[in-house]
Amino acid sequence: MKRFTKSALAAMIAGVGLTAAATAQVPSSPNGIAFPAGYQDWRVISVSHRTDNNTLRVILGNDEAISAARAGKTNPWPDGAVLGKVVWKDVTAEHWPAATVPGTFVHAEFMFKDAQQYADTGGWGWARWKGLDQQPYGKDANVAQECVGCHTPVKDNDLVFTRPASMPLVLE
Amino acid sequence: MKRFTKSALAAMIAGVGLTAAATAQVPSSPNGIAFPAGYQDWRVISVSHRTDNNTLRVILGNDEAISAARAGKTNPWPDGAVLGKVVWKDVTAEHWPAATVPGTFVHAEFMFKDAQQYADTGGWGWARWKGLDQQPYGKDANVAQECVGCHTPVKDNDLVFTRPASMPLVLE
Repeated sequence: MKRFTKSALAAMIAGVGLTAAATAQVPSSPNGIAFPAGYQDWRVISVSHRTDNNTLRVILGNDEAISAARAGKTNPWPDGAVLGKVVWKDVTAEHWPAATVPGTFVHAEFMFKDAQQYADTGGWGWARWKGLDQQPYGKDANVAQECVGCHTPVKDNDLVFTRPASMPLVLE
Repeated sequence: MKRFTKSALAAMIAGVGLTAAATAQVPSSPNGIAFPAGYQDWRVISVSHRTDNNTLRVILGNDEAISAARAGKTNPWPDGAVLGKVVWKDVTAEHWPAATVPGTFVHAEFMFKDAQQYADTGGWGWARWKGLDQQPYGKDANVAQECVGCHTPVKDNDLVFTRPASMPLVLE
């Protein structure tokens, strides 16, 4: 796998276009889960705001997850569904003081559903990449234990906090 | 244009699939702007949380808007860019009391950039559709005046409140 130094990635992130990074790769999570390149193009499942750590989030889904969410088939989510949570520190909107908007990008974290492959961690593969240079999170292959622990309160909802936001039907 | 009664639309919204509504149409805005069907599939530009009216929002963009946002070319936004703001009342997350998540869907509202066509309203066409049955908002063709009035504080930012959220480059 081709890897880039932090400074090289920072240079690409600051670049004027996207093509310069077309061949760039982000290292896999310590548990072997590959970075889901292109997740920024996924569609929206929901949003949230946490006041305990002052973050705003958008929850995205790959095509399988979006299909399941729109069909209401999310307990359990189907194999192949991937949920992505993109997290920013919140800041006050410059021109609307009662509004909170994204500040610093914190991380993007993911749940990859495969009931058999990930049977040991609740049927989901778990991984997070931190910062704009998307450094893999976690010290070793057991990184998912922390994720599962935090998600235990929603074990009856297939370990997923997110409920798909109410949206009008997609009309063609 | 084919129109549906509220009850028929409600039945479709409650339906198990998307195909039933494939030929449905939502009426245009009173100022003639056509409903941007399929906006739920657009990509994310930002999110926000307003505490003055207790709403959570995701700001989406069509392909032209996403390209402009990622290239940092948003003042002015290019002709053809469309920004969509999807708004929900906020509620406390069932399993995370310090988090706020989407409750009732309120409306989706849009800005359509065309500096020449919409020169009289700041270079943008403005329209909003309310509720899950997406009823056009406004009494007459002057509906945009209310929008422009509210957006005046950001006249130096092409009348757009939203700053694209910081995101890692999209890697292929």
